[in-house]
Amino acid sequence: MTADLTTHPTVGEAPDGIVLTTLPRDEPIDAATAAARRVVDALLRTDRGAADLIRVTEVLDGIADQLEEHAPEVADRLLDMWKGEGVTGHDPVTGRENAIAPPLRLVGRSEGHVEGVVTLSLPYQGPPGHVHGGVSALLLDHTLGVANAWAGQSGATAQLNVRYHRPTPLFEPLTVRGRLETVDGRKITTVGDIRTADGTVCVSVEALFVDRTVPRPR
Amino acid sequence: MTADLTTHPTVGEAPDGIVLTTLPRDEPIDAATAAARRVVDALLRTDRGAADLIRVTEVLDGIADQLEEHAPEVADRLLDMWKGEGVTGHDPVTGRENAIAPPLRLVGRSEGHVEGVVTLSLPYQGPPGHVHGGVSALLLDHTLGVANAWAGQSGATAQLNVRYHRPTPLFEPLTVRGRLETVDGRKITTVGDIRTADGTVCVSVEALFVDRTVPRPR
Repeated sequence: MTADLTTHPTVGEAPDGIVLTTLPRDEPIDAATAAARRVVDALLRTDRGAADLIRVTEVLDGIADQLEEHAPEVADRLLDMWKGEGVTGHDPVTGRENAIAPPLRLVGRSEGHVEGVVTLSLPYQGPPGHVHGGVSALLLDHTLGVANAWAGQSGATAQLNVRYHRPTPLFEPLTVRGRLETVDGRKITTVGDIRTADGTVCVSVEALFVDRTVPRPR
Repeated sequence: MTADLTTHPTVGEAPDGIVLTTLPRDEPIDAATAAARRVVDALLRTDRGAADLIRVTEVLDGIADQLEEHAPEVADRLLDMWKGEGVTGHDPVTGRENAIAPPLRLVGRSEGHVEGVVTLSLPYQGPPGHVHGGVSALLLDHTLGVANAWAGQSGATAQLNVRYHRPTPLFEPLTVRGRLETVDGRKITTVGDIRTADGTVCVSVEALFVDRTVPRPR
């Protein structure tokens, strides 16, 4: 994540428990995306024979047509996304406006870490009944970027090293955590993990970020 | 990925270019999921002020209600997913029945690797106009699992080490590749990368899988 450090809350300045991802605003776009998320999930759960999928397809294509009719050029849309709107509204992990995102809600802690609780369902499945290993990597990568911002740093991911300790269950609350560990020149090391409610670590991560705001030594 | 090795095509046995992910079948569920994918994308692209998002929400919630009405218990649904249906139909990377999946279509090559071409759009965005680093990790993790199966192996991911060489662009074709490198007892090492059309490597990965089909030495 590339955070705007001029406005992003940081540990020490902002209160413990402050929400770092955008808050639910119940705005029309949030509500429509939440409904789309329900459709994505229900399509995986529904009985393939019983649902009237021909009609479902027609209605969904009609909705897509209507939304696309009002879509600006992608270049213009990108400008709005990154200037006029909250930068955490559209990403695939915490973005309430992105139906792919669970979405994960992260808060900053005064001890220095960020954390959030999420329950994942069938769209995120890898092994039977468990979270896809790549989905865990996605959640952790994003969470570490938010942890960097919470620590007042910003950098591009250079290395992401994920360790899988045990299968991560679907359908139960998982805590995702991230914390900046060290800053060494332009190199930022950040760690995190995903745990079940009883504290068992399922996946852990260590990542190296390269800070682009510090000039190279010369 | 945990492949069923009794039926999964493997290099040497199956022809070069064989599709390892399920083929588009244009069945009602595939068509409905493709339409849902269009909605997910269009929700991120549409003008927040111009589209009638209140009506969109009502219609999408109505579709979700209808699909959920025909949804079996999750435990029963899981049985169907993993027994009665193709195992590659519902995952979040290659699954045509999963609206979160782009979906990536992978083929097996007689030289030993698997590969697929995919163009990603706004739902997969990390930095402005570029693919989220965690999404690249997700695509690679899954592709390596398919590469193992193509090589006749199966294992659970133990470590996934991702290197980010340069930003990965949205809106242009990316080639995702994976290849099993070595098998050492129960340890399988598999590598892969994501390249742009001109062959530039944006992201590379090396992963360690642990084969669960070989008994532990004793």
